Amino acid sequence: MRLRRIPRAGAYIANHPELAVVGGEGLKGNWQSLFEKQQPIHIEIGMGKGGFITEMARQHPDVNFVGIEVYDSVLLRALEKLVEDPLPNLRLLHGDAANLGEVFDSGEVAKVYLNFSDPWPKTRHAKRRLTHVGFLEIYKETLIDGGKLQLKTDNSSLFEYSLWSFNHFGMTFLDVSVDVHADPERYPENVMTEYERKFHGLGQPIYLLEASF
Amino acid sequence: MRLRRIPRAGAYIANHPELAVVGGEGLKGNWQSLFEKQQPIHIEIGMGKGGFITEMARQHPDVNFVGIEVYDSVLLRALEKLVEDPLPNLRLLHGDAANLGEVFDSGEVAKVYLNFSDPWPKTRHAKRRLTHVGFLEIYKETLIDGGKLQLKTDNSSLFEYSLWSFNHFGMTFLDVSVDVHADPERYPENVMTEYERKFHGLGQPIYLLEASF
Repeated sequence: MRLRRIPRAGAYIANHPELAVVGGEGLKGNWQSLFEKQQPIHIEIGMGKGGFITEMARQHPDVNFVGIEVYDSVLLRALEKLVEDPLPNLRLLHGDAANLGEVFDSGEVAKVYLNFSDPWPKTRHAKRRLTHVGFLEIYKETLIDGGKLQLKTDNSSLFEYSLWSFNHFGMTFLDVSVDVHADPERYPENVMTEYERKFHGLGQPIYLLEASF
Repeated sequence: MRLRRIPRAGAYIANHPELAVVGGEGLKGNWQSLFEKQQPIHIEIGMGKGGFITEMARQHPDVNFVGIEVYDSVLLRALEKLVEDPLPNLRLLHGDAANLGEVFDSGEVAKVYLNFSDPWPKTRHAKRRLTHVGFLEIYKETLIDGGKLQLKTDNSSLFEYSLWSFNHFGMTFLDVSVDVHADPERYPENVMTEYERKFHGLGQPIYLLEASF
């Protein structure tokens, strides 16, 4: 995502502590306290402007969602929407995936979503890919037993790498698709991200991989 | 493959026992005796007219190849080519993949190739797919420890199913591609089958999955 720096983002986020958490280390083990109902927590890492997680929260009132974004100027957009149209089961986190282990307690999360993550195509940057073994270890620690990880991407190299990486980490595949939109009856509840809408519109296949630890 | 029944196929095959084996149960444990050199045996299940395995045998003189085909009218075409242009490291087998356990001894094969296998799209036919757990068990028994299985297909459903099936069988992914021809430098030694040439020509992506047991 091309970023435009928005100077007021930091202050706006700080002014909405009931909806957006900064850092999040203080909430470790207590994320349920942010929500009206005690129910499974699903997180999206790199939610961007929040289109996916906001719609997921609307469609799944029986799940508590946390949208995570490292860039405050981007998180700002999701937060503005949430301020305008609050949802009891959606909270935002301004933070870095590398710190998840300090932010969530072991077993505090039921599912992790990765949507159109940066593919980091160069081999020397493989460690930065959100499906690298280093991140899989963090997710596994954060997730409940049998917790799930779902990836959607338009990037064939990241998809191939993730198939390899999940398999080598001993994860169990639950669902694989090389073209989410090929058969409209297969994923009737698919929620598109802003990116997905764009790349699907360009005729690109969208890849999906869901697996459990 | 649409089949034209060729009545003379059976007799022609029977007349070339030095190049084509019928059934093969009698050779169990003795396949190396068919070849000039004792070297690893790679087999292709469903070789069709033999374009792939003939070219592989040419390019890899350090491997003994066995091309397997259940339809004698199809195997005939591969055999005619081999009669015309014999290769010391290629033999053909008229037989059924379901019988592999009776045809090859445990550990007699180093690698299995599946190219553009019948996808058997209906769920009730899943057992007939050559990447179904029932076949994986047979391959594992036939292969050396750490033996390899490589699939190429243009069929997205068979590819997705095979990713799932290999993963659930505990196989280790060695290579995954959702578009073998996307980057010409990635598979410089890729040998195309007749089908691959046709479907690649139609702009279809060719999928590849290689894994070890």
